[in-house]
Amino acid sequence: MSQIWALRLEYDGSGFVGWQRQANGVSVQQVLEEAASKLAQGAAVASIVAGRTDAGVHAAGQVAQITLAAEWRPERLREALNFHLKPHPVVVLQAAKVSDGWNARFSARARHYRYVILNRRARPALDVNRVWHVHAPLDAEAMQAAAQFLLGKHDFTSFRASSCQAKSPVRTLDRLEVRRDGERIVVEASGRSFLHHQVRNMAGTLRWFGERRHPPEFMRVILESVSRAAAGPTAPPDGLTLSAVTYDADPFE
Amino acid sequence: MSQIWALRLEYDGSGFVGWQRQANGVSVQQVLEEAASKLAQGAAVASIVAGRTDAGVHAAGQVAQITLAAEWRPERLREALNFHLKPHPVVVLQAAKVSDGWNARFSARARHYRYVILNRRARPALDVNRVWHVHAPLDAEAMQAAAQFLLGKHDFTSFRASSCQAKSPVRTLDRLEVRRDGERIVVEASGRSFLHHQVRNMAGTLRWFGERRHPPEFMRVILESVSRAAAGPTAPPDGLTLSAVTYDADPFE
Repeated sequence: MSQIWALRLEYDGSGFVGWQRQANGVSVQQVLEEAASKLAQGAAVASIVAGRTDAGVHAAGQVAQITLAAEWRPERLREALNFHLKPHPVVVLQAAKVSDGWNARFSARARHYRYVILNRRARPALDVNRVWHVHAPLDAEAMQAAAQFLLGKHDFTSFRASSCQAKSPVRTLDRLEVRRDGERIVVEASGRSFLHHQVRNMAGTLRWFGERRHPPEFMRVILESVSRAAAGPTAPPDGLTLSAVTYDADPFE
Repeated sequence: MSQIWALRLEYDGSGFVGWQRQANGVSVQQVLEEAASKLAQGAAVASIVAGRTDAGVHAAGQVAQITLAAEWRPERLREALNFHLKPHPVVVLQAAKVSDGWNARFSARARHYRYVILNRRARPALDVNRVWHVHAPLDAEAMQAAAQFLLGKHDFTSFRASSCQAKSPVRTLDRLEVRRDGERIVVEASGRSFLHHQVRNMAGTLRWFGERRHPPEFMRVILESVSRAAAGPTAPPDGLTLSAVTYDADPFE
């Protein structure tokens, strides 16, 4: 009898066209499904993922699910997948059996993203492709104050990509924290789900507040405009990492 | 009149043959000196460095010195060097004028290194070339206990590369701290100067203690053996970063 597996994944998104398969390049999904197919005598293996990250976006705790016919011990499955994932910068951190009703995407209670801005004059040498380089000094406390106006359940149209396919622009943002860590400004965002580009659009808009273009309260005006044109530009994918996905019954515990 | 400059540098050592010029590849020194030469109408510019890092070793706070004939404002010099350093993963974080007697190498009071071990089953996907991957679980507290036996002034022959050109194997180790940070084990080492491969040899030996091959006190036996064969293997360069160099009169303050 076939078994459903939850896989916790880390990947460097720099060289990929994103999670989803595309005609114009290599996707994380393709690399994972091809590795899984090697364990299924070459039969196609389909995956379902918690967060469909864009090109250049990284993951430290993405969760995907696959179904395999053969029996596997979790550690052996992780090692076998990691063997076949080489040399791509994608690894399985954990593999866990899940029951039939569980779904990597629909059972997720929260997605947790981290956006890192390198805020100094010199471009990055050590964290190329891993940070958004903003050279003008940013006020992290002003960014944090502005961020608080986005918490809760709102129509997030102002932060929604035109390509977004979600039926509703209403989302509940549980956490949006901005803190300075030396030369870095770290933004942590958590919510059940996000619109397409929502975190990057929030990061690009928070930059305005870091530059003190507006007082923090103006974030409410941007939100209530319900217009993409009211918010800031989309921040680059480099700084974004899907850090974790949480479930009511955590399959990895 | 010519001016001596202190430069604080960040670089990713992965693609370099190390700091020093070599016939077999590109060095950080070469890349820096060629960028500086562009600011001197093509005349050769020689540099002196605080820590001659090996191939694959990174720097977050290396310090080098160069002499330039023309007048420069510090910010303009930093920007001009960074322009010419592109596309190499080397940047000048700060440039500061120094007086005649100052020397990047000989005036340094302390060098600070960080060695990072990724201690988990899966190989790194996000920090390729930036960590030493050790998959067997390590006891960071045992490593920290063993590390304390190396503090102070000793003959460090047990941790010295055969290629080391220092006249004396005696060094004073001011700090050697090991702590766990999630899946990472971070080793911080500080001292006026280090022997060739000393930090990597200490890291490779600390791994033994993390595996509980010996009780922490056995580190004293290894040290007192005054024999390279008594200590552990050299840890790979990937995990090592020269994090800072400090001076009595800090030129960057």
